[in-house]
Amino acid sequence: MNIKQIKEAAKRLHGRTFSTPLMSSTVLNELAGRRILVKPECLQHTGSFKYRGAFSAISKLPKSTLANGIVAYSSGNHAQAIALAAQQHNCSSVIVMPHDAPKVKINRTRRLGSEIKLYDRAKQSRENIAFQLADERGLTIIKPYDDPMVIAGQGTVGLEIALEAESHGIKNADVLICCGGGGLTSGIALALEANAPGLRARTCEPEGFDDTARSLAKGKICHNEKLLEGVCDAIMAPSPGKLTFPIMQRLCGPGLVVSENQALHAMVAAFHHLKLVLEPSGAVALAAALFHKQTSISDPAIVVLSGGNVDPSMFAKALAIDKNF
Amino acid sequence: MNIKQIKEAAKRLHGRTFSTPLMSSTVLNELAGRRILVKPECLQHTGSFKYRGAFSAISKLPKSTLANGIVAYSSGNHAQAIALAAQQHNCSSVIVMPHDAPKVKINRTRRLGSEIKLYDRAKQSRENIAFQLADERGLTIIKPYDDPMVIAGQGTVGLEIALEAESHGIKNADVLICCGGGGLTSGIALALEANAPGLRARTCEPEGFDDTARSLAKGKICHNEKLLEGVCDAIMAPSPGKLTFPIMQRLCGPGLVVSENQALHAMVAAFHHLKLVLEPSGAVALAAALFHKQTSISDPAIVVLSGGNVDPSMFAKALAIDKNF
Repeated sequence: MNIKQIKEAAKRLHGRTFSTPLMSSTVLNELAGRRILVKPECLQHTGSFKYRGAFSAISKLPKSTLANGIVAYSSGNHAQAIALAAQQHNCSSVIVMPHDAPKVKINRTRRLGSEIKLYDRAKQSRENIAFQLADERGLTIIKPYDDPMVIAGQGTVGLEIALEAESHGIKNADVLICCGGGGLTSGIALALEANAPGLRARTCEPEGFDDTARSLAKGKICHNEKLLEGVCDAIMAPSPGKLTFPIMQRLCGPGLVVSENQALHAMVAAFHHLKLVLEPSGAVALAAALFHKQTSISDPAIVVLSGGNVDPSMFAKALAIDKNF
Repeated sequence: MNIKQIKEAAKRLHGRTFSTPLMSSTVLNELAGRRILVKPECLQHTGSFKYRGAFSAISKLPKSTLANGIVAYSSGNHAQAIALAAQQHNCSSVIVMPHDAPKVKINRTRRLGSEIKLYDRAKQSRENIAFQLADERGLTIIKPYDDPMVIAGQGTVGLEIALEAESHGIKNADVLICCGGGGLTSGIALALEANAPGLRARTCEPEGFDDTARSLAKGKICHNEKLLEGVCDAIMAPSPGKLTFPIMQRLCGPGLVVSENQALHAMVAAFHHLKLVLEPSGAVALAAALFHKQTSISDPAIVVLSGGNVDPSMFAKALAIDKNF
């Protein structure tokens, strides 16, 4: 993986992706005790940064591959992104999704024209189902993070951050990133290394799913003990990826971990002070910026809000926890 | 009022306001049956476009006036905007607000350092209270819409729309605008007249508060029969303003009216498909774009989302009305 691949992805994505602007709120700065600039990728097409990687990967496929169709596995954000990007390439898509994924994610993916295969996360392997489908039907698999073209697409977030940070006069800062398998983090880290070396990528994860923080601390890939339950459905990858981990190990600062409750509070803060809809997974980095006051997070800090695909019931649950507004 | 005043306001606001980007959603286009581009002013500082007009007006005041302090009346969006802009000019502010305004608006205005005077909308005149305060304490009144510098500030929304529409290749379109007293609409209309004459401003109002639509149709200022109840608290002005109406009469297309229920559905659409938090008043123009399918609204249409300051309970109420997502 290198910066050239990210810059080439940026060219393919030009006019397709929405260049999300850095945003700020004086109240949020007060709450965090530091200046915060947020990169609202919840405003990206299909409601998360995943559209960048999906479009980047699909736009590199040869016509014959597109004609046969693609398959992906995802709890719902990569799913919708693949569904839309496939549709835009006149390519059929099959998505393997957990049966307990948020309803909005399943419904939206289906509406975008994908064939959905539901599976039971407690009993089945989504990779096995996808590989079997690929075998039987001649489909091409687009992995959610361990794919160079996916990482290159997510890295375009980093190119935009580098550019905007400069226009805000920010040369040194931590860039906090919600982290599942590490596709977004490693892509951003590579882009920052090349274009804004004073900015440092840092992973943010929910408690109980802190595989990347532990992997970075121990210098080797660690796994999560459980992969069930948890409100942060979008970032419950079993471990950092084989492609993403070496990049994160080389470039990222120590990983940050927040509680699920802190993620829900960050959703409420985004509702009130940014007028943005975040899903729990998409609020984890903001939670780190808001609640890790005593740690070594920089001031200013740049925070990537990675997604906003949330069921109304979960959103209402978050709104109900915080009555002090 | 002229375009020069708007361009001068833009200079004063440079580096202060957030240049909200035009956004789109393929799903929203499908739902509306037309291409929609939204201007998300809910993302503006203090959660509504009002910050533009407030900063524009306060930044023109002489130092002696700033030293004495200002007074404003508002259901909450102009209030917060005045509070923040006054704070930024080291100027004290008093805000006259209805006691039944959304709690977020009252609390946020107070936290921004303003002195709050609550009044009873059914029994008292906010203008009288403000004029009395101005008299007693030597304060300067900043009206919510019938003030040239306020209109000039709101007009900067129109300058940005003109610029962005051009970059999207849009030369002819209706620009739908949530309308209370007409400050935002008249400012945008003037900016479009100068910089994008193929774009036409159109007012959008909730049923029962359609004073502007009726005024435009009859060619004279009409009033609302009631000014109580109603979920669209931010746009319940009694009538178009003396300054704003002649501008709207000269430049705007026919006014559009939607039901409150349609405004709530538009809030839900913005939640799902734009990941934006809107208040009912801020969703009225989107409701017109979504539900006025058979009328003469243009394709494409540009929609100004004017604000997002909403109590969690009202937001949860809106989410509960629409189970089909």
